[in-house]
Amino acid sequence: MTQKYQAQIYVTLRPSVLDPAGTAVQSGLRHMGHNNVEEVRIGKYIQVSLTAENKTAAMDQLDCICDQLLANPVIENYRIELAEVSSSVNIHS
Amino acid sequence: MTQKYQAQIYVTLRPSVLDPAGTAVQSGLRHMGHNNVEEVRIGKYIQVSLTAENKTAAMDQLDCICDQLLANPVIENYRIELAEVSSSVNIHS
Repeated sequence: MTQKYQAQIYVTLRPSVLDPAGTAVQSGLRHMGHNNVEEVRIGKYIQVSLTAENKTAAMDQLDCICDQLLANPVIENYRIELAEVSSSVNIHS
Repeated sequence: MTQKYQAQIYVTLRPSVLDPAGTAVQSGLRHMGHNNVEEVRIGKYIQVSLTAENKTAAMDQLDCICDQLLANPVIENYRIELAEVSSSVNIHS
């Protein structure tokens, strides 16, 4: 029997990689008077719902998905949080 | 004395708003054989480091920043996680 899972994936630029979008936001914040903001870095937050045999299988598949499609391993790190979803729960509520 | 804070901000599309990027990723995953992926939604994950008098002041300022710049309140929700940073810790390590 397959189980339903909900994953939260955080994709961030590696610390050594410049983040022009983050720098632009920080610059915008300074113009708006938020001079105490020291750094802004922008990443992706991806929510994936999937079915799998078990948690290990789901995690292995998500690792594969991140490496192949969601993240660029050369310049980005990713972190996956995985939770089982009870079938009676609507994840959008 | 001001304290250093590190905020994690999650900006997501409201559940009622269509996510074409997420749908495109899901479609790509299906073509790659990941047929058990039921939904993908893509949001932003923003890391902000700032200094503030206290946690309440930092949170109020981040709320303001999200409403003004980081999120579009009409179609997006946001969630802020705030943590104090010890001055001896390098947040990039």
